[in-house]
Amino acid sequence: MNQNTLLKLLNDVASGHIIPEDARKSLLHLAVEDIDYAHIDHHRSLRKGFPEVIFGEGKTHDQICGIMERMEIQEDIILVTRIEREKAENVLARFPKASFHEDARMLILENKPLPKTGSGKILIISAGTSDIPVAKEAFLTANAMGNSVETLFDVGVAGIHRLFQHKSLLEAASVLIVVAGMEGALPSVVAGLVKSPVIAVPTSVGYGVSLGGLTALFSMLNSCSSNVSVVNIDNGFGAGYVASAINHIHQK
Amino acid sequence: MNQNTLLKLLNDVASGHIIPEDARKSLLHLAVEDIDYAHIDHHRSLRKGFPEVIFGEGKTHDQICGIMERMEIQEDIILVTRIEREKAENVLARFPKASFHEDARMLILENKPLPKTGSGKILIISAGTSDIPVAKEAFLTANAMGNSVETLFDVGVAGIHRLFQHKSLLEAASVLIVVAGMEGALPSVVAGLVKSPVIAVPTSVGYGVSLGGLTALFSMLNSCSSNVSVVNIDNGFGAGYVASAINHIHQK
Amino acid sequence: MNQNTLLKLLNDVASGHIIPEDARKSLLHLAVEDIDYAHIDHHRSLRKGFPEVIFGEGKTHDQICGIMERMEIQEDIILVTRIEREKAENVLARFPKASFHEDARMLILENKPLPKTGSGKILIISAGTSDIPVAKEAFLTANAMGNSVETLFDVGVAGIHRLFQHKSLLEAASVLIVVAGMEGALPSVVAGLVKSPVIAVPTSVGYGVSLGGLTALFSMLNSCSSNVSVVNIDNGFGAGYVASAINHIHQK
Amino acid sequence: MNQNTLLKLLNDVASGHIIPEDARKSLLHLAVEDIDYAHIDHHRSLRKGFPEVIFGEGKTHDQICGIMERMEIQEDIILVTRIEREKAENVLARFPKASFHEDARMLILENKPLPKTGSGKILIISAGTSDIPVAKEAFLTANAMGNSVETLFDVGVAGIHRLFQHKSLLEAASVLIVVAGMEGALPSVVAGLVKSPVIAVPTSVGYGVSLGGLTALFSMLNSCSSNVSVVNIDNGFGAGYVASAINHIHQK
Amino acid sequence: MNQNTLLKLLNDVASGHIIPEDARKSLLHLAVEDIDYAHIDHHRSLRKGFPEVIFGEGKTHDQICGIMERMEIQEDIILVTRIEREKAENVLARFPKASFHEDARMLILENKPLPKTGSGKILIISAGTSDIPVAKEAFLTANAMGNSVETLFDVGVAGIHRLFQHKSLLEAASVLIVVAGMEGALPSVVAGLVKSPVIAVPTSVGYGVSLGGLTALFSMLNSCSSNVSVVNIDNGFGAGYVASAINHIHQK
Amino acid sequence: MNQNTLLKLLNDVASGHIIPEDARKSLLHLAVEDIDYAHIDHHRSLRKGFPEVIFGEGKTHDQICGIMERMEIQEDIILVTRIEREKAENVLARFPKASFHEDARMLILENKPLPKTGSGKILIISAGTSDIPVAKEAFLTANAMGNSVETLFDVGVAGIHRLFQHKSLLEAASVLIVVAGMEGALPSVVAGLVKSPVIAVPTSVGYGVSLGGLTALFSMLNSCSSNVSVVNIDNGFGAGYVASAINHIHQK
Amino acid sequence: MNQNTLLKLLNDVASGHIIPEDARKSLLHLAVEDIDYAHIDHHRSLRKGFPEVIFGEGKTHDQICGIMERMEIQEDIILVTRIEREKAENVLARFPKASFHEDARMLILENKPLPKTGSGKILIISAGTSDIPVAKEAFLTANAMGNSVETLFDVGVAGIHRLFQHKSLLEAASVLIVVAGMEGALPSVVAGLVKSPVIAVPTSVGYGVSLGGLTALFSMLNSCSSNVSVVNIDNGFGAGYVASAINHIHQK
Amino acid sequence: MNQNTLLKLLNDVASGHIIPEDARKSLLHLAVEDIDYAHIDHHRSLRKGFPEVIFGEGKTHDQICGIMERMEIQEDIILVTRIEREKAENVLARFPKASFHEDARMLILENKPLPKTGSGKILIISAGTSDIPVAKEAFLTANAMGNSVETLFDVGVAGIHRLFQHKSLLEAASVLIVVAGMEGALPSVVAGLVKSPVIAVPTSVGYGVSLGGLTALFSMLNSCSSNVSVVNIDNGFGAGYVASAINHIHQK
Repeated sequence: MNQNTLLKLLNDVASGHIIPEDARKSLLHLAVEDIDYAHIDHHRSLRKGFPEVIFGEGKTHDQICGIMERMEIQEDIILVTRIEREKAENVLARFPKASFHEDARMLILENKPLPKTGSGKILIISAGTSDIPVAKEAFLTANAMGNSVETLFDVGVAGIHRLFQHKSLLEAASVLIVVAGMEGALPSVVAGLVKSPVIAVPTSVGYGVSLGGLTALFSMLNSCSSNVSVVNIDNGFGAGYVASAINHIHQK
Repeated sequence: MNQNTLLKLLNDVASGHIIPEDARKSLLHLAVEDIDYAHIDHHRSLRKGFPEVIFGEGKTHDQICGIMERMEIQEDIILVTRIEREKAENVLARFPKASFHEDARMLILENKPLPKTGSGKILIISAGTSDIPVAKEAFLTANAMGNSVETLFDVGVAGIHRLFQHKSLLEAASVLIVVAGMEGALPSVVAGLVKSPVIAVPTSVGYGVSLGGLTALFSMLNSCSSNVSVVNIDNGFGAGYVASAINHIHQK
Repeated sequence: MNQNTLLKLLNDVASGHIIPEDARKSLLHLAVEDIDYAHIDHHRSLRKGFPEVIFGEGKTHDQICGIMERMEIQEDIILVTRIEREKAENVLARFPKASFHEDARMLILENKPLPKTGSGKILIISAGTSDIPVAKEAFLTANAMGNSVETLFDVGVAGIHRLFQHKSLLEAASVLIVVAGMEGALPSVVAGLVKSPVIAVPTSVGYGVSLGGLTALFSMLNSCSSNVSVVNIDNGFGAGYVASAINHIHQK
Repeated sequence: MNQNTLLKLLNDVASGHIIPEDARKSLLHLAVEDIDYAHIDHHRSLRKGFPEVIFGEGKTHDQICGIMERMEIQEDIILVTRIEREKAENVLARFPKASFHEDARMLILENKPLPKTGSGKILIISAGTSDIPVAKEAFLTANAMGNSVETLFDVGVAGIHRLFQHKSLLEAASVLIVVAGMEGALPSVVAGLVKSPVIAVPTSVGYGVSLGGLTALFSMLNSCSSNVSVVNIDNGFGAGYVASAINHIHQK
Repeated sequence: MNQNTLLKLLNDVASGHIIPEDARKSLLHLAVEDIDYAHIDHHRSLRKGFPEVIFGEGKTHDQICGIMERMEIQEDIILVTRIEREKAENVLARFPKASFHEDARMLILENKPLPKTGSGKILIISAGTSDIPVAKEAFLTANAMGNSVETLFDVGVAGIHRLFQHKSLLEAASVLIVVAGMEGALPSVVAGLVKSPVIAVPTSVGYGVSLGGLTALFSMLNSCSSNVSVVNIDNGFGAGYVASAINHIHQK
Repeated sequence: MNQNTLLKLLNDVASGHIIPEDARKSLLHLAVEDIDYAHIDHHRSLRKGFPEVIFGEGKTHDQICGIMERMEIQEDIILVTRIEREKAENVLARFPKASFHEDARMLILENKPLPKTGSGKILIISAGTSDIPVAKEAFLTANAMGNSVETLFDVGVAGIHRLFQHKSLLEAASVLIVVAGMEGALPSVVAGLVKSPVIAVPTSVGYGVSLGGLTALFSMLNSCSSNVSVVNIDNGFGAGYVASAINHIHQK
Repeated sequence: MNQNTLLKLLNDVASGHIIPEDARKSLLHLAVEDIDYAHIDHHRSLRKGFPEVIFGEGKTHDQICGIMERMEIQEDIILVTRIEREKAENVLARFPKASFHEDARMLILENKPLPKTGSGKILIISAGTSDIPVAKEAFLTANAMGNSVETLFDVGVAGIHRLFQHKSLLEAASVLIVVAGMEGALPSVVAGLVKSPVIAVPTSVGYGVSLGGLTALFSMLNSCSSNVSVVNIDNGFGAGYVASAINHIHQK
Repeated sequence: MNQNTLLKLLNDVASGHIIPEDARKSLLHLAVEDIDYAHIDHHRSLRKGFPEVIFGEGKTHDQICGIMERMEIQEDIILVTRIEREKAENVLARFPKASFHEDARMLILENKPLPKTGSGKILIISAGTSDIPVAKEAFLTANAMGNSVETLFDVGVAGIHRLFQHKSLLEAASVLIVVAGMEGALPSVVAGLVKSPVIAVPTSVGYGVSLGGLTALFSMLNSCSSNVSVVNIDNGFGAGYVASAINHIHQK
């Protein structure tokens, strides 16, 4: 759907030839802009409640800027994930209003402040200090998507009492994100204490048979606590996104 | 916490020495019954909203019956997962009111009908006919936990139009469970169409480099759609449990 | 077969001592030039319809130039794959007429323009923008081998409607190459829509359990659509080559 | 699309309200019959040139018969793959005209003889005697899909001269399927001798680090001959299907 | 043969009581009995403090009996591990004084009661009821080697308070063996609570990405608690043996 | 080469039209008999010094007998490997002179006693009693191929002095085959003591991370002793064959 | 537990309101200091006998210094593991009394000399010269934790007599740490010679199928000597820690 | 130390020239020099026929020089493998007579020319130009160990006729080393043509599912030709060493 057909549709709505509900439906799955190296999915916001997020890895900064330019016209917020400092600086030169979070490798362009629309509270827990960058990515994502988010860092199972001090915080959360590397045991313990859904995020922190995060991942998938589901290794973004989707199930 | 200490606590509440809220808290993490081969966690219902579920694999039918006998006193519903026909028949002989679902390898003892407490609708989708047993396990679990559940079977990506016929059903669901083996592509496609959280369940259906379900699992963890989280291979039970936890986030 | 024996054979044909058909047969499997670090297979063009392609990895630029010098005498076109910028620049200094395609890591020396000999159209589809370099390698190869080639980039399954907009393009192709990383789901969806053969190319785009492309590869090998065959991870060259072989089956 | 809507469409064509070409298009992606445990894709024949093939593994014989009953009405041929003797005998009791090929684990119901529509010849080669069942599955599939097929068994690389005796047969084929277990070297050697596309099928024949066919699979994906693409381990069916798709590229 | 008997031998050579050639032979590290299919290491008791233990897998019951017959003459106790019921019954027919423990797959022949020689207490903990057979093998081994052993079963991390009830038991142990399948998180939690060495035993309990125990194993090797070392999957015997070795370091 | 062309060749030799040396050369790579399910390589004896060996796995007993019938005419000895009892009994019914070795899963038909042609002595060592079947397969193979073979069983590294007692035996061998499962350490130790080539054979004996023999295999490939080369897991036959090839290098 | 509550507790002890033994117990599991990016577990010394050890990987030098500043107040010794030169130099600038051991990548801050509290002797053995850095990390750790430690380097199995020269040293040790890469055979051989517990440490030394240390790890877990337990690849720190825990079992 | 010197030692004990205690010490398998970071095995030449070879990886140039200094006194030749340019230059500065072969990463110090002692000819074949560095390492090793060595490069299976041109060369060799990456098919083909032992060397040449050489390795271990044994990935040194051991079996 190009700019002209979009305009025509809206004119038809304006003139009463098309009723709004029908227009909403046709907009839902059609509007795609082809800029050669990308098919930008402009109506993802409508369909999914949040615009397309740009995966920075493997794209040049020119490609990222090109996509952002098209999106900027229509969206309130743009997220770029997995973008390294050098590439980010090139993008910041073009979009000075954007902010870059180096540890989380995330760039955010906020055209206007987003309201808090999520119904409950999201709690993000990390097992160790070295897991914080991934936890941060989850935090920035969930926050950008309109949720109240709290964090609790470095409460791994080697000193399990650190976690128990915060039991009321745990019980108050609607959704919990638990980030852990090495043996990935923390989500099982946390999920055993609460009834809310727990999203486990394995990290690549560790060495030897941590196998770049595979061990933590498999551990979490084998959790003996049943209210646990899992996302990819180091995928803080995905965890934040899923948590937000859960926290918005009543805003359908 | 044995039966005596439990009684004492309740007497204290009755006599006003302990206020109910305080009693609730102490009950939350204490009551465990040690029957030698098992430490039964009687207050899991209170803490987690659902009693302990018995993992049938690797337990004798005597052990399963022993645990069920202790649980039966206190719980409205008991679930046993991964229980084969022969073992199940031995358990049914002792608990004739229980029902056994052979394809889902699940045994359910329902002492009294459970109310529908989940706030939205859970939709369970399977990619192929061979994935139905796992989908069924998810269905039975989510149903037993007090949710409205619908199903849509055999709508895999080789004939993607089969899925599109049911778009309104997809959009109406609060939570979606998508079960697929082989290349495990269906959750990505489904999640691209909805804003609700999608729980992906890989199955061991397939051969060669399906690697017993690992390929479907990894596919799902790599989904380019962001509202997807994943459970273990063939873990229909876990998917149903997580979906129910999501569907109850407002009943905290 | 050295230059002398080749000459003698051709003289024998000229003088009628050997009939052409017999000469064709003996040339088919014999002519090899030994330059110490390589046995150049000069008659691969005759036997396979396309000259030997130089695999750039692990060879010095001197070795590459040495092989090209020998091939240049006899071939209309020379391809070097997996060659990095620095090595390529050294080769370009010696063969200024060659062109280097950095994103596809390919160097092409075209002595004379090749006719379009393939009977149908090859369509190359990429799931994401980050998969384009591999798609480009497939494009350059299929193009160099005498085929009409079209491309369609960034139409991955997270927004499946982007693909459906181009259905007639899909149905018109004789052979389709589908390039995808992460969960590698696109080839299954595409193959479900067409009757032509689909060559799936997994890429190493992704992280965590994308496992450097293994997940996409295994996904594709498990495709529930049956008209799919697969090449190695990031092997755009191989995909282009196979597509061309298919597109020439009637030129035998 | 149920039987009523199908009838209405055809009536519209009959009455001239819809021109045939338009009717063909709408039929292409719509007709699906929902029989609870399966969504039968009745127009796959139209779209893909061959009806849906039933994957026998993980289905009960009742489910297989149920699907076949619906398909029988509309299709000239029905294939069931990966079906063991016991299950097959139950199906044969219901469909006595069907034939069961035990070594290939395939059941075929041919309502009327299919014409040879493929333009060239398909040659199926096996490395060893133990690879024949997989080769047979490829043969039955390609044959059922309307192709001329020839076979050449037990010509593995341990005695490579066995292969060279048949060089003219190799050169005459439009498409070659090469089936091999253990080290999976044969496709590379064959592909080095011909210009036609080679479809490599790894088998699980072997032990130790044959790893159930993974070694042969990886070998084939790494072939130094470029006209090779690969299907899943033991997937003779897929190889036959792809070969037929290639052999029909001119019947579009 | 200890240092004293060695010196005596050499003195005998010096004094001429033994000729050099004979001394050379006996020095070649001695007491081994060759019964064709086995070289029985009779002095292992002397060197290691416990006789050779017979690994039952892959041996016929005749071979097992043959080895036991030779050992019986010299040893107070004989252990056979990984021996299935049928094989065990054949051995029991020959050695009726032996006892067979089917769940632990262990056969023990105790010629005379062994004193408790270990200095502290060994505590064996299992995460689930299904892990008990492996825990039992550890128990039987440690017990047979002269240690005081206690057990604590089914205290996994899904209900972590079950473990905390037994904190004094944990703190009293000299060595702890922690047996767990699935995510294998329990050893990390236990080791975080005590200063004694913890031997972690992964079990093959679980499914999907439990990978036959590999996930639990890797989890344990990545423990963020540092006083943990690990033995092979399901190796209860090894854990009991190592625990006993630790519990005897002062009896050197 | 069929029987006629073979006869013609021999007649030509007889009549002096072809000198014997030239006949030997042409026989070397040609004679193959096609019996549909097998291309029997009759001149392998000439080319390789030993006839084709039949891999029993995946062949029916009819196929095995069929191949043996053709080979029996020309060969002094026929070996069938990896043949189970039931299949073997069917073959023995047809070839009563053959002998079946159940533990080694080998069937041998010796038409006439073979002379000892190998120049040195082959020593076969096994680490444990459970490794003997594989060692036996190596023994039978090397013996059948005309070598003097000795064995030394159950001398694993847990009691390394058992090995040292036999040092002169080790030093006397021309080639050593070392068979070991579990950690596969024995070949390194043996190879450190001798200058002769050591062929290491990993076995699938063990459990857990023995990974079906992969651990022993990888151990052996990483041997810090340099005179070690390795064959596939449980491949006693291959080890015996290689050892014989080495022991015959002077009979070229 | 913050500084105020700690002070209050100590005042209560001072005033006699709390007896010391009760104070000891409450301190045991409570005192945690939250400094945003870390929850410092100040009473780990009390509970575990040694303070928290800082895992340097993935932490900034600012974070490391921040944690050390808080710990320095209460602890006699601070260990930082896996810290590279550049990061270490930044830490040394702030803590000039600390010492950095580059090969072992360890930084140690010793506030006051620690007494030798371990009851026996720890012996650390390395298979090769390339394994020394890992052995060194074990040495530094065990030494810092109050043990007498000796070392024996480069005594691998390719020249096994090098080890036997030191048999009395081996037999004198209470605990042995054996460090080896490649095939990881040394721990089996050492453990076969002694009755003390052996802690095996696989290293990533090697190439090809050493698989970054996995082969050595799996070898060690499969040891046919039973007194062996294992830690993670290159985890010299863990081995030193476990050895110390064993060497202190009588100081409970 | 051979049998004669041993007997002499014991005679010296018998005659009183050596006291028993001293004899005990020297018998402890002797000539090893301890230089702290290495135990140099000076009598390896005697025992194995070739001195210890220094594995360069993971050693500092100071350590390498230190070992070489001690060895230089006693050995005619010193080999250092896996040594990179920078380290090599530091060693060359100390040992200017040594030669460095950069592609093979090998440094050789030849104190005096070594005679050709091997009885036959070793032929080294490489599949591709990129495999030459590994082939070169094999060449240098076999040459240094006193063998006649010939080479044949770039004769891979994609153009199998390149190999057949050299059939007489193949048949003349006593031992063949075949070096190949990617699918690793060449050793099977070569071994099918000769009766001599073939040592297969997988290389890490390739990408994607070449898996760093694992695919070639597994291919070779599964060779359907039986006269093949295998060494570690890229282990040209090991192949040369084994080939030399084979070529010297008659010089025992």
